[in-house]
Amino acid sequence: MRLQPLGDRVVLKQLTAEATTKSGIVLPGQEKEKPQQAEVVAVGPGGMVDGKEIAMCVKVGDKVIYSKYAGTEIKLDEDENYIIVKQSDILAILQ
Amino acid sequence: MRLQPLGDRVVLKQLTAEATTKSGIVLPGQEKEKPQQAEVVAVGPGGMVDGKEIAMCVKVGDKVIYSKYAGTEIKLDEDENYIIVKQSDILAILQ
Amino acid sequence: MRLQPLGDRVVLKQLTAEATTKSGIVLPGQEKEKPQQAEVVAVGPGGMVDGKEIAMCVKVGDKVIYSKYAGTEIKLDEDENYIIVKQSDILAILQ
Amino acid sequence: MRLQPLGDRVVLKQLTAEATTKSGIVLPGQEKEKPQQAEVVAVGPGGMVDGKEIAMCVKVGDKVIYSKYAGTEIKLDEDENYIIVKQSDILAILQ
Amino acid sequence: MRLQPLGDRVVLKQLTAEATTKSGIVLPGQEKEKPQQAEVVAVGPGGMVDGKEIAMCVKVGDKVIYSKYAGTEIKLDEDENYIIVKQSDILAILQ
Amino acid sequence: MRLQPLGDRVVLKQLTAEATTKSGIVLPGQEKEKPQQAEVVAVGPGGMVDGKEIAMCVKVGDKVIYSKYAGTEIKLDEDENYIIVKQSDILAILQ
Amino acid sequence: MRLQPLGDRVVLKQLTAEATTKSGIVLPGQEKEKPQQAEVVAVGPGGMVDGKEIAMCVKVGDKVIYSKYAGTEIKLDEDENYIIVKQSDILAILQ
Repeated sequence: MRLQPLGDRVVLKQLTAEATTKSGIVLPGQEKEKPQQAEVVAVGPGGMVDGKEIAMCVKVGDKVIYSKYAGTEIKLDEDENYIIVKQSDILAILQ
Repeated sequence: MRLQPLGDRVVLKQLTAEATTKSGIVLPGQEKEKPQQAEVVAVGPGGMVDGKEIAMCVKVGDKVIYSKYAGTEIKLDEDENYIIVKQSDILAILQ
Repeated sequence: MRLQPLGDRVVLKQLTAEATTKSGIVLPGQEKEKPQQAEVVAVGPGGMVDGKEIAMCVKVGDKVIYSKYAGTEIKLDEDENYIIVKQSDILAILQ
Repeated sequence: MRLQPLGDRVVLKQLTAEATTKSGIVLPGQEKEKPQQAEVVAVGPGGMVDGKEIAMCVKVGDKVIYSKYAGTEIKLDEDENYIIVKQSDILAILQ
Repeated sequence: MRLQPLGDRVVLKQLTAEATTKSGIVLPGQEKEKPQQAEVVAVGPGGMVDGKEIAMCVKVGDKVIYSKYAGTEIKLDEDENYIIVKQSDILAILQ
Repeated sequence: MRLQPLGDRVVLKQLTAEATTKSGIVLPGQEKEKPQQAEVVAVGPGGMVDGKEIAMCVKVGDKVIYSKYAGTEIKLDEDENYIIVKQSDILAILQ
Repeated sequence: MRLQPLGDRVVLKQLTAEATTKSGIVLPGQEKEKPQQAEVVAVGPGGMVDGKEIAMCVKVGDKVIYSKYAGTEIKLDEDENYIIVKQSDILAILQ
């Protein structure tokens, strides 16, 4: 991974397969308001962030549910799209 | 349960039977402004969350009243709908 | 009481008699902007709430004045209407 | 006094005589933007309020200037009108 | 002075002479957006204010520049107009 | 300097020469959205400001870049225009 | 570098090559909503900033991704354009 996130930030790669129904039809309009599934590809060091001690509790490879509107989309190359979120915008880990 | 919530988050399953009147008629429009009843299906670890020590005081199986607009709806499969809320959005436990 | 409020929350039962004039005529439109009288029916445990130590100072049976817009209305059964407020939304105890 | 305010709240009785000019003519429109004079009729216990230690420094009988828009008007009976404010909305004591 | 300000508040008497140009012509429209000069006439005790320790560093008789929109105008009698500001709204002392 | 700023405030004198292009043409409309260069003419004592310990790190004579919209313009005499900013609105020192 | 940023601020030089597609065509409208790549050219001392202890974790020469709307554009000379951001607006380091 070429991105090292700062502080309590986490780099995610969206799991686009989840954006389709079981029959495989993509429903882009309907998906807009929903939280998103993604895989963690890089994790910040945590520690003192904005005056608060933050411990990181996700790790590379975790599948997570995150709040879509909180993240920032990053396009590194034409084929690489990432989302950088704060760990507090990750709602849950999928097991 | 396939979802492990982070921090002070709690995964809820809405108790849809409560959204009907005693005679069993669903009144969807009328329900919009009201808090919701749900069952707790997963509880985050609590601890240090956003620089504050949070102790979790709900447990799996609790029936709770929560503030509807605070949560995030999650659809894992076609038959599984969950809501992820922060514990502070849970108003009371039903006994 | 079937509701156990969390944290610094308090369950109130509105004293509807107060919403009438001395002659007994209900004036619903005129009442909207005013604080409300209610009886405390359940009290949360207090303690550490949102990172602050909160001591509860109302008890079941207290008649209180609260800020109407702060609470959340709860309808448990057809005859039971409650309001859940944070203790900080209770302005005063009526003696 | 029948009202016992909570936390850092103070119950005030407005000094309506101040709302007139020296010649005694009431100017209601002109008064709207101005701070108000009132007499303190009940004082909360102070102490830990919203996670902060608050010492009460007004006492019953004090004439005070308060910020009108901060308070909540209370009508207990037809002849009793009070205002409940936080002590921080009291600007000064009149001596 | 008849006003004893609470907490970190300061009572000011506006120096109206400053609101004119050197030639003495009052320019009311032009003055609206500008900070104001005033003389300190009473100073609150400071100490613990809203959970923070505040030391007062202005004294009666100081000429100060303050942010006009932060204060509250007080009319005690027909000839006495004062402004009550928090010390943090005083920008500088004129020497 | 006749102005002694309070707390973490700093008095600046705008460097108007910077508001022109190299060819010397003033471009007032174009300058509006940009940060400004100024010289420090007075520095507050710092210390405990709004409950936080602030150390002052600019000194009289420093050329600084500041965020234009944060400051308050002061006109002491007809020829003296100053800006009072909080130190946190100073972005950088020019060397 | 002629700019010494204060506190937790960082001076960046935008990497304009990144604002083009692989074929080299600049797409200004399309770029507006995206985070930006930049090189760090100066780093503030960190330490106590706004009452919080901030450790600086970027250094001169780092390539970083930052949130475009957070920074302030600085034009020192005609050929030098910089952006001053707080370190918390830097999302990640590019490796």
